[in-house]
Amino acid sequence: MEKMKVDRQYISKLQNESQEIRDILVEITSKNGGHLAPNLGVVELTQAIMEVFNLPQDKLLFDVGHQSYVYKLLTGRKERFKTLRTKGGIGPFSDPKESEYDFFIAGHAGSALSAGAGIAKANPNQKVIVVIGDASIANGHSLEALNNIGENLKNLIVILNDNEMSIGKNVGSLSNFFGKLMISNAYMNIRKDVRSVMSKGKVGNQVKSVLERIEHSVKQFFLPSSISEVLGYQFLGVIDGHNLEELIKNLIRAKEMEGPVFIHVKTEKGKGFQLAEENKEKFHGISPFNPETGEVKSGGETYSNIFGSKLVELAEKDQNIYAISAAMVKGTGLGEFQNRFEERCIDVGIAEGHGVTFSAGLAISGKKPYVAIYSTFFQRAIDQLIHDVGLQNLPVRFIVDRAGIVGEDGKTHQGIHDINMFLTMPNYKVLAPTTGKELKSILEFSKNFEESPLAIRFPRGNAFELEGMADFEFEIGKWQEVKRGEKNLYLTTGAMLEQILSIEKELLERGLGGTIVSCSSIRPLDENFILDEFSKYENIFTFEDGYERGGFGDEILRFLNEKKIKININKIALNSVAIPHGSRNILLEDYGLRGKKLIERIEGSINGEK
Amino acid sequence: MEKMKVDRQYISKLQNESQEIRDILVEITSKNGGHLAPNLGVVELTQAIMEVFNLPQDKLLFDVGHQSYVYKLLTGRKERFKTLRTKGGIGPFSDPKESEYDFFIAGHAGSALSAGAGIAKANPNQKVIVVIGDASIANGHSLEALNNIGENLKNLIVILNDNEMSIGKNVGSLSNFFGKLMISNAYMNIRKDVRSVMSKGKVGNQVKSVLERIEHSVKQFFLPSSISEVLGYQFLGVIDGHNLEELIKNLIRAKEMEGPVFIHVKTEKGKGFQLAEENKEKFHGISPFNPETGEVKSGGETYSNIFGSKLVELAEKDQNIYAISAAMVKGTGLGEFQNRFEERCIDVGIAEGHGVTFSAGLAISGKKPYVAIYSTFFQRAIDQLIHDVGLQNLPVRFIVDRAGIVGEDGKTHQGIHDINMFLTMPNYKVLAPTTGKELKSILEFSKNFEESPLAIRFPRGNAFELEGMADFEFEIGKWQEVKRGEKNLYLTTGAMLEQILSIEKELLERGLGGTIVSCSSIRPLDENFILDEFSKYENIFTFEDGYERGGFGDEILRFLNEKKIKININKIALNSVAIPHGSRNILLEDYGLRGKKLIERIEGSINGEK
Repeated sequence: MEKMKVDRQYISKLQNESQEIRDILVEITSKNGGHLAPNLGVVELTQAIMEVFNLPQDKLLFDVGHQSYVYKLLTGRKERFKTLRTKGGIGPFSDPKESEYDFFIAGHAGSALSAGAGIAKANPNQKVIVVIGDASIANGHSLEALNNIGENLKNLIVILNDNEMSIGKNVGSLSNFFGKLMISNAYMNIRKDVRSVMSKGKVGNQVKSVLERIEHSVKQFFLPSSISEVLGYQFLGVIDGHNLEELIKNLIRAKEMEGPVFIHVKTEKGKGFQLAEENKEKFHGISPFNPETGEVKSGGETYSNIFGSKLVELAEKDQNIYAISAAMVKGTGLGEFQNRFEERCIDVGIAEGHGVTFSAGLAISGKKPYVAIYSTFFQRAIDQLIHDVGLQNLPVRFIVDRAGIVGEDGKTHQGIHDINMFLTMPNYKVLAPTTGKELKSILEFSKNFEESPLAIRFPRGNAFELEGMADFEFEIGKWQEVKRGEKNLYLTTGAMLEQILSIEKELLERGLGGTIVSCSSIRPLDENFILDEFSKYENIFTFEDGYERGGFGDEILRFLNEKKIKININKIALNSVAIPHGSRNILLEDYGLRGKKLIERIEGSINGEK
Repeated sequence: MEKMKVDRQYISKLQNESQEIRDILVEITSKNGGHLAPNLGVVELTQAIMEVFNLPQDKLLFDVGHQSYVYKLLTGRKERFKTLRTKGGIGPFSDPKESEYDFFIAGHAGSALSAGAGIAKANPNQKVIVVIGDASIANGHSLEALNNIGENLKNLIVILNDNEMSIGKNVGSLSNFFGKLMISNAYMNIRKDVRSVMSKGKVGNQVKSVLERIEHSVKQFFLPSSISEVLGYQFLGVIDGHNLEELIKNLIRAKEMEGPVFIHVKTEKGKGFQLAEENKEKFHGISPFNPETGEVKSGGETYSNIFGSKLVELAEKDQNIYAISAAMVKGTGLGEFQNRFEERCIDVGIAEGHGVTFSAGLAISGKKPYVAIYSTFFQRAIDQLIHDVGLQNLPVRFIVDRAGIVGEDGKTHQGIHDINMFLTMPNYKVLAPTTGKELKSILEFSKNFEESPLAIRFPRGNAFELEGMADFEFEIGKWQEVKRGEKNLYLTTGAMLEQILSIEKELLERGLGGTIVSCSSIRPLDENFILDEFSKYENIFTFEDGYERGGFGDEILRFLNEKKIKININKIALNSVAIPHGSRNILLEDYGLRGKKLIERIEGSINGEK
């Protein structure tokens, strides 16, 4: 039956399906945004896996889940695929809650090999297939797993989806190590040549033997067999990831082998959509775009851009300023910095832990590192933040980008743990600018701040600016009154100043007006403000776009308790840590941090409702 | 001048020094405890580095710092070395606060390559030398660094201290990968043979050429040059790590090379002290022992032992129970479990992140994994705890061993962040048994608890048991009154019940008696107890051996605030996150959690002092 699958007619049917899938991918991501280029690259690979393995009894995991759109289309989610990344719709990554075909969650890179190992151990009679990219595999989490798998997981199949490119550019020597596998191409070509000469039947025995010897020594030299042997895997590859016949044949072989099997598949990111083939990085993860021109509607100035431009300005005057990114140079606004100061811009790849400790090494040597990482990915470096930076009290500046609700990337990517984590770490100051200008002011302040590490958090999206109001200069441990009122005190951090000001009129109309304060300094708190001002108000509110446990509101509660002051705080924060995907503004409102829901929440608190 | 250093007389002088160092190491660790075997293994290596490099201008980092005793002895800390691991004395790891020769902190494994990379980048005119063990190098943090170093750090020298043994046993295939480097031994031997034959001058040209060809092909096959090339390093090795002449010559060569240089040194753990050579694991990190017999004073029953025995009992009846350890099988009490259920005991090596996600893979497949890791090392797996376990709400049981103050291992190893971290993670229950019997009861409860992940924390050392009092059965979300009193309510978690009971008499004498409650259920709190009982008391105290921010006390404050109840809480917890080394009981007292200091703290709180 399996032979039938490499029958010419059958393959041709699959090829038609490939085209249909690509059309859907382009159509939907052009409308909803999403990870287009990676999915265009795995169309045939996913089809072939579906053909060969018995899913969902066998388990397929993607590292990371953003490669799983094709899989979603092929596992009963085609009709709903137009809802991709929208509220209540098809999610951005793999999620067991979405389909029985998604056996394990997959948002952050690097986890699938470990999860796959556990699943393979627990299900020895099922095949477990992990598809992993060439950037993900060089991540510490993946490498730890690779290290452990070699031992005895005979039912595990690892497919390296090698598109010669991570999200940004592929960095590092272990990538080369896996890249080295590709050298087998050279061998494959030589072997082809040799065999073609021999097959012509015109060579004598002596020539044949010489050729065979050449083939053998080339094989010795180039084939990765020794590497895969050392790692304890059976090796198959390199396989053309867009050749369905080759893929299916090899996967059938892999299925029959005693594993673990390591299959090296070469794919092209963006395959089949010219715009994406020509600009792979742009189309990796993209906002809605014009499918004819590739044009993306350009937005306003984001916090990331402000950070990037300001850092360039600072770095021009100060040779000691370095920027560190973990595979997100452009995403964190560091594109220009990288162009201008290549030597001082270090992209460590998907290796947040290494990046943090590397920066500690710079700081202890008197440099001024700025480490820009998305809030959710700082979770990968907690020990390094505590042990290498915090305990030594080194002045590393951490730029916590995409803090708060990130929107379409959903529950695995929400930046809602950073406040409470940084608050409990030794020596850290924690800042959350409420406007773009304040971010600049904080960066200006930070350049000569050597007293401790700093965490500076800001949200995804366009910077908010106060209009028609005097700007304030940032001062650490000092809050700023933005509007003066009575009865109610509104203490806002980060993105929440914008939200409160946007409902201010309605609050006033409902008799809920009050004093609005920008509290960008979360640690240290403005203790004088608390001691002098709190008693003047009937209701005190704190606002933060992070998880409420251990956050800004709790930090104030702590301080009040310490001072034996008995005041209740109305904490407006996120009460959940599993916030799904959808547009940021819709989610902010759904979770009570924006618009009507926010007004109702304030009103409810004042009127004693819960 | 450097030639002089390999002069026979000079080497002989160094060898005498080696002996002297070994004597001191045995003498002091037999009294104070400590990492004896690893340091016996690096005596000559450390001497050679000191001879060749210009320290402290050049920078030497150990991964991990427990290998640095010899270095301490050679850098002005010999006189004070007898204070090793005692309060105020020489620390257990590397620490810049202790000496200018320690350029960077080093407690947790895996950080030195990253830090070294940053330091090398910032100090291009200094050599940076990182000594790393064969277990540390297979850790995700190290591998991320190895991946990044290859690029361009010409002044970095990595020395693999290969003693063919991690703390427990060496696990995993990447260890083999680095272990493979050792195969060069085979080559070195063959080369010696070949050269010896040739040097005898008795072979004809033809034989010579054949021999050379053999040598070449063997080299091709065995020498790690291609691996080191791929990784982008210059390679030197294998070097006998106890041969001072060979070490010094090669280090001089490395110093002159354009790096990065990777040097493979083979050492023997415990070298020169027979008891340690024969029992390397026992002498890795050891309590005070008899230097004649190796005997260690055996203590009482520890929490770790109770956990280990109980898990064996549970696993006998339930095939689904698995135990996962990260290079600490014996340390976490799992030795017997490993012997009995080898297939269900997985030691992932120093790879906590992988271990956690691996367990998530087991749990999602219906198994019951127990993951035993020291509190401080859970910091290495925060993202995995959130993303792979928490968000999917998988019933993984986390055994948080060495929670609270650990004592002699000092500030990098204190287990004081786990409560606040687990409290902010999705879905986790957080439990801190107050007696050994309660730990058993919790483990019994946990075996069929599938509702959510569990974190069960307990301290280092002997289990506390209530004597002459009725035992209570653990019930989640339920606190237990241990003693009934008035006015003061003492809410204790984990190790703190013992501490309060041990000062109870004195509290009564001073009129500070009260109701003592065992609060092993931190999340969920016993909300009924809070609502029903708090109002009956004048002073409410919470006790926890963790960092106070975001801990048990704060969790109660949160709940009270939510219910709009205005009660102050006297939080007795650790107010610092950098607690040095010293005996656990002394530190507990110093930081106000034991004995007189604890009494004073309680008295001060009640009398309104701070």
